[in-house]
Amino acid sequence: MSAPAGSTRLERTRDDDAETRMASISALFEPTSVAVIGASDDPTRIGGRPIRYLREAGFGGAIYPVNPNRSLVQGLPAHATLASITSAVDLAVVALPAEQVLDALAACAAKGVRVVIVFSAGFAEADEAGAQRQRAMAQIARDSSMRILGPNCLGAFNAHNGFFGTFTQALDQAGMSAGPVAIASQSGACGGHLSYLCRQRGIGIGYWVTTGNEADIELSECLLWLARAPTVRVIVAYAEAIRDGARFVEALKTARANGKAVVMLKVGRSQVGARAAASHTGALTGEDAVYDAVMRQYGVHRAASIEEMLDIAYGCARGVLPRDRRLGIVTVSGGVGVQMADAAEQFGLETPPMPESGQARIKAMIPFAGTANPIDLTAQLANDRSLMGRCLDIVLSEGDYASIILFMTSSPAVPASADWLMNTLAEVGQRHPDRLFVLSFAAPVEVVRRFEAAGYLVYEDTHRAVRAVGAMARMAQGFARERQPRPAAALLAQSLAASAAPVARPALEALDEHGAKRLLAAAGIPVLREIVAADAQAVEQAAEDLGTPVALKVLSPDIAHKTEVGGVALGLATPQAAACAAREMLARVREQLPQARLNGVLVSPMCGGGVETICGVYPDPVFGPMVMFGLGGIHVEVLRDVAFRLAPFDTDEAFSMIEEIRGAALLRGARGSPPADIEVLARTLSRLSVFAHVNRGVIAEIDINPFLVLARGHGAFALDALVLPTAA
Amino acid sequence: MSAPAGSTRLERTRDDDAETRMASISALFEPTSVAVIGASDDPTRIGGRPIRYLREAGFGGAIYPVNPNRSLVQGLPAHATLASITSAVDLAVVALPAEQVLDALAACAAKGVRVVIVFSAGFAEADEAGAQRQRAMAQIARDSSMRILGPNCLGAFNAHNGFFGTFTQALDQAGMSAGPVAIASQSGACGGHLSYLCRQRGIGIGYWVTTGNEADIELSECLLWLARAPTVRVIVAYAEAIRDGARFVEALKTARANGKAVVMLKVGRSQVGARAAASHTGALTGEDAVYDAVMRQYGVHRAASIEEMLDIAYGCARGVLPRDRRLGIVTVSGGVGVQMADAAEQFGLETPPMPESGQARIKAMIPFAGTANPIDLTAQLANDRSLMGRCLDIVLSEGDYASIILFMTSSPAVPASADWLMNTLAEVGQRHPDRLFVLSFAAPVEVVRRFEAAGYLVYEDTHRAVRAVGAMARMAQGFARERQPRPAAALLAQSLAASAAPVARPALEALDEHGAKRLLAAAGIPVLREIVAADAQAVEQAAEDLGTPVALKVLSPDIAHKTEVGGVALGLATPQAAACAAREMLARVREQLPQARLNGVLVSPMCGGGVETICGVYPDPVFGPMVMFGLGGIHVEVLRDVAFRLAPFDTDEAFSMIEEIRGAALLRGARGSPPADIEVLARTLSRLSVFAHVNRGVIAEIDINPFLVLARGHGAFALDALVLPTAA
Repeated sequence: MSAPAGSTRLERTRDDDAETRMASISALFEPTSVAVIGASDDPTRIGGRPIRYLREAGFGGAIYPVNPNRSLVQGLPAHATLASITSAVDLAVVALPAEQVLDALAACAAKGVRVVIVFSAGFAEADEAGAQRQRAMAQIARDSSMRILGPNCLGAFNAHNGFFGTFTQALDQAGMSAGPVAIASQSGACGGHLSYLCRQRGIGIGYWVTTGNEADIELSECLLWLARAPTVRVIVAYAEAIRDGARFVEALKTARANGKAVVMLKVGRSQVGARAAASHTGALTGEDAVYDAVMRQYGVHRAASIEEMLDIAYGCARGVLPRDRRLGIVTVSGGVGVQMADAAEQFGLETPPMPESGQARIKAMIPFAGTANPIDLTAQLANDRSLMGRCLDIVLSEGDYASIILFMTSSPAVPASADWLMNTLAEVGQRHPDRLFVLSFAAPVEVVRRFEAAGYLVYEDTHRAVRAVGAMARMAQGFARERQPRPAAALLAQSLAASAAPVARPALEALDEHGAKRLLAAAGIPVLREIVAADAQAVEQAAEDLGTPVALKVLSPDIAHKTEVGGVALGLATPQAAACAAREMLARVREQLPQARLNGVLVSPMCGGGVETICGVYPDPVFGPMVMFGLGGIHVEVLRDVAFRLAPFDTDEAFSMIEEIRGAALLRGARGSPPADIEVLARTLSRLSVFAHVNRGVIAEIDINPFLVLARGHGAFALDALVLPTAA
Repeated sequence: MSAPAGSTRLERTRDDDAETRMASISALFEPTSVAVIGASDDPTRIGGRPIRYLREAGFGGAIYPVNPNRSLVQGLPAHATLASITSAVDLAVVALPAEQVLDALAACAAKGVRVVIVFSAGFAEADEAGAQRQRAMAQIARDSSMRILGPNCLGAFNAHNGFFGTFTQALDQAGMSAGPVAIASQSGACGGHLSYLCRQRGIGIGYWVTTGNEADIELSECLLWLARAPTVRVIVAYAEAIRDGARFVEALKTARANGKAVVMLKVGRSQVGARAAASHTGALTGEDAVYDAVMRQYGVHRAASIEEMLDIAYGCARGVLPRDRRLGIVTVSGGVGVQMADAAEQFGLETPPMPESGQARIKAMIPFAGTANPIDLTAQLANDRSLMGRCLDIVLSEGDYASIILFMTSSPAVPASADWLMNTLAEVGQRHPDRLFVLSFAAPVEVVRRFEAAGYLVYEDTHRAVRAVGAMARMAQGFARERQPRPAAALLAQSLAASAAPVARPALEALDEHGAKRLLAAAGIPVLREIVAADAQAVEQAAEDLGTPVALKVLSPDIAHKTEVGGVALGLATPQAAACAAREMLARVREQLPQARLNGVLVSPMCGGGVETICGVYPDPVFGPMVMFGLGGIHVEVLRDVAFRLAPFDTDEAFSMIEEIRGAALLRGARGSPPADIEVLARTLSRLSVFAHVNRGVIAEIDINPFLVLARGHGAFALDALVLPTAA
């Protein structure tokens, strides 16, 4: 399920399949009739809660409690079996002990139920018997057209139509008001907790789903459906391991194309965390750096905590994103203003100073004000409250900031101050309707709600306010980038369309360095002009042709480490010296490795200067071929200063990849050396990604080390290359 | 005031002075009588609030309103002038326009007032006229024995004795209950905001002071006083720029010795932030990396936000710190457990798995539980609540964790669940009184307060809970380290005591490379055996003595860049080749720089292999000599991978400094090379710090580049050295 499809035929099947899958997720969120198997009369029990929630939420469809021991369940007529329900059943909720679940599923399939939600625990997360039951469950889903959510999940809800197929206790206290936020969580408890916290913060949830053990329906399908849902603005996702990398990426692309923010908590960053995640879901947790790269590449905000995730979801839910990264900071405390400026830099926002004229106008009103940015209105405000509105007006009209964060200490905790602030903001806001207004103050929750109802974002902590605005600006930038025609993206599409069929597998067997380089050269990766020479005489001629000095490398598909057998000679100054070295080299290698196939000697011009980099490809089990980039030597091996991207990607993405490593300054021309040819490097990385993508079925790994990047205008070259086929 | 003292005489004066200063801060926090100059009858005005707060808090001393226009102020008899008060006045609060402040201060000095708090703005933060007034104010303090807090501050309070010399509106809503937290802030508004947030979170503040423009009393003095105050457990500090680095360090050392946690927000990390900070306080903001190093060195937790600062203050305020870094995570959500494990790694905590026996005992009760660590009790808990207590007992008795974080989603929001949790914890806690119990759940504030009152820490967000425990464990470790006799610390004390007098300034003039190395060698820095040769013949003899190959470097105090004038020759294989190279070198240099003083040629053995590092010293204007360490080449220059420490420090500190750089793996023996002689490197850094400290009055900068560190057991050597004297 998780392996990337290798052929066009498979992909077509997949596309058809995708629409069927989306229809089944629609059936999950929008059922017209619901049966609860294992229904309880007690509205606090697992089998009782869904019925209670459905009725409290005014679900419009039919509700069928299934319970052989009662005639009424919570006042509704109960059915002894599912089969005894005469009408069609769209969706069934199963709240039974694990041992009874398979029978219930068989009955559901026989009845023609479209989706079943299985709450029960005791499957793959428990023991081998449970894992067996889970495999049988998956088989039922495959054999029927019926989909299964769970087992070991808390179900799903759709606050828009009152469908509550869940027993989460987080809904106990009050109903959920529908809103633009959707939550998809692999962990049930975490999903429930998120819904409680959202309600506490006044964040309205439209759709909510927990996928549990994912015997059938998995997170990525849900994300894709939510990315298409018109009322969803923000998708909050909690994941431990993605099972279907391709669909996950499709979901993220769809969300970005539709301008929906995705905020995600992917756990398992640490060694210990990954250990716990693996035991919790029984799924293979991919390398964290790969997840990180994929999320970055497709514009997901990866949060480190639930609080961060909700801070950003809350900000995006309002639907106003800043048009750029320019932030104006207005404060009544100089100190807190400085803190916000620090945070702005940390979170990728710009805080350009106000123009001189605007600064002068504020100084004229408040002589001791800080006027650059942060704009510190000082305690003067306490003496003349009209100053705030007038200053804000100047900041907004002259400063040209996309966002404003206004820090007010705890003054709105005083009702009169809150009224005054509300009025001032309303006036100023009318004149600048295109700006994002964010307030930061500490006050009782009623005061916060009042400002939120008027359309402002309120964060008590300034650091969290700035972090959220930074994330929102980054997302807005990603959405804008999607909407504009980009030459790099067009070029990528073009080169993918024009890509030849994958390399034939036989051509990949017994590939020596020269063969690998020719393969890469055909894919547009720059290599030096090199000559294969069969013997010492041919080497002499080749050195003559190429010009000295030259390097020699023995060519053999059987020799991985050439240096160790004396198969490399560098800096040979004359054709004669080259011939002599070749003779000696071939004799030595034949003596040491008499079985090795020898394809001759590769003669290359010596190439000095420049920056050594490493460009590689390796297959991630979840996502497919990942391209890796780093600087050569200690940078990759010791400092682990590398960047990853999922193939294929365009040159814009390649530039961002290059910029991402800490050592990028070396390529920009540090220590008096000229800037390197980053353009050629970026083009090469993009081409490598296309090549890796097209050949993902046959090529497993590629290692170009070193890839030497010369000064700008002088190009870059693969000096050594290794291409490994996939296991046949 | 901020320059480090250069002689013993000065330091003695400073010590006497220090006690006087501490007495004056006592007078600030513990006055027996208070005059308010500019007293207002309106309890909401700046001149009215202190009187109102003093009376509300039941201040036991005399209160004298000074107001020439009224006979009664807020019911108290008013005095027309300060002089007309017949009794002595301990402390005066000045709430007057800036123009009237100097006269008031003169009156205070004449009256023998010990401390004056000046609220008024319009001084150095405003304009040149204000700066002039501030200088005059500082002069008054110097000329009298009277101390001045402010101007442009919000004053101070002591909740223990009801002294409230402040007009902060943050105290409007309710009185402050005294507690073990002290707050010292340079920013008034930020200080006020902190006090509001503390009250909201139930954190009791004992002492609170804002220092504003610091015409006289500055933050470090307040910190030192608080570090000595018996009732203070946690010091929360907010700073934009430290004026007196030496006293700041003394305060931090005192706090650490007394086992008091210091949590600090030092703003100005970013370029923009530093710009704003400079304009806000008019003080020179030191390099941020230096502040960072000093705080790390002396065990301060540097927070990035107000929220983080209060999270940690809240944790430390309870007075129970974990005895080590071992954290047990108990959760009812596997997913959130994994998150906490990720966070634990991020924040320096260890989460070792439970012993097998304990795991088996839990499995026996809850078959599907995660039992390693995180310990996931799963939803089973809902069915049998007794499981929690029994499992916690096993975790605590078998897991040997110093801290436990227990995540309970929002279940304590349900009153019955809260009761049950409280009872369970009380039972378990009795059996394990030595552990730190931290709870993480979401629930109404009354529920949180109830658990806090029972002695538990409660954090809604798990990430913040783990961050706080990490900080607390680090502090506890720092305190424990202080209490134990450490050989490294003893050695440092010994070598400081044994240090010779500073180098005489004349010896530092005209110092060539050889002179610099001899100076450093005398201080215990390892150098190679090198010979100064006057001419080619002497070079030949020297090469003979040292053994070839050798390196030659021209010696001249007038030549900074030897390579550029052909003053360096490397790898000379025979004494004759060395002589020949020396002859040529001396001729060339004489021709090119006929004015340069030539001290001959330095002959050194060639030394290969090892890791090139840079050890340097430079004078921070606030803190004095800082020692810098990094790897050579691009590591320092391009990657800026460096660590700083304030001199002097011991070898333990030097080891932590070495470990701090990202490239430290190179010294541990990466890529098949042997581990480097880190012991010698650490000893060298410590000795360099002692040398820099002792000579801080005469030596400004030292640059040992490269300092070559060979394989373990083979030592390390200064291959080149530069010593620059201070400006005479």
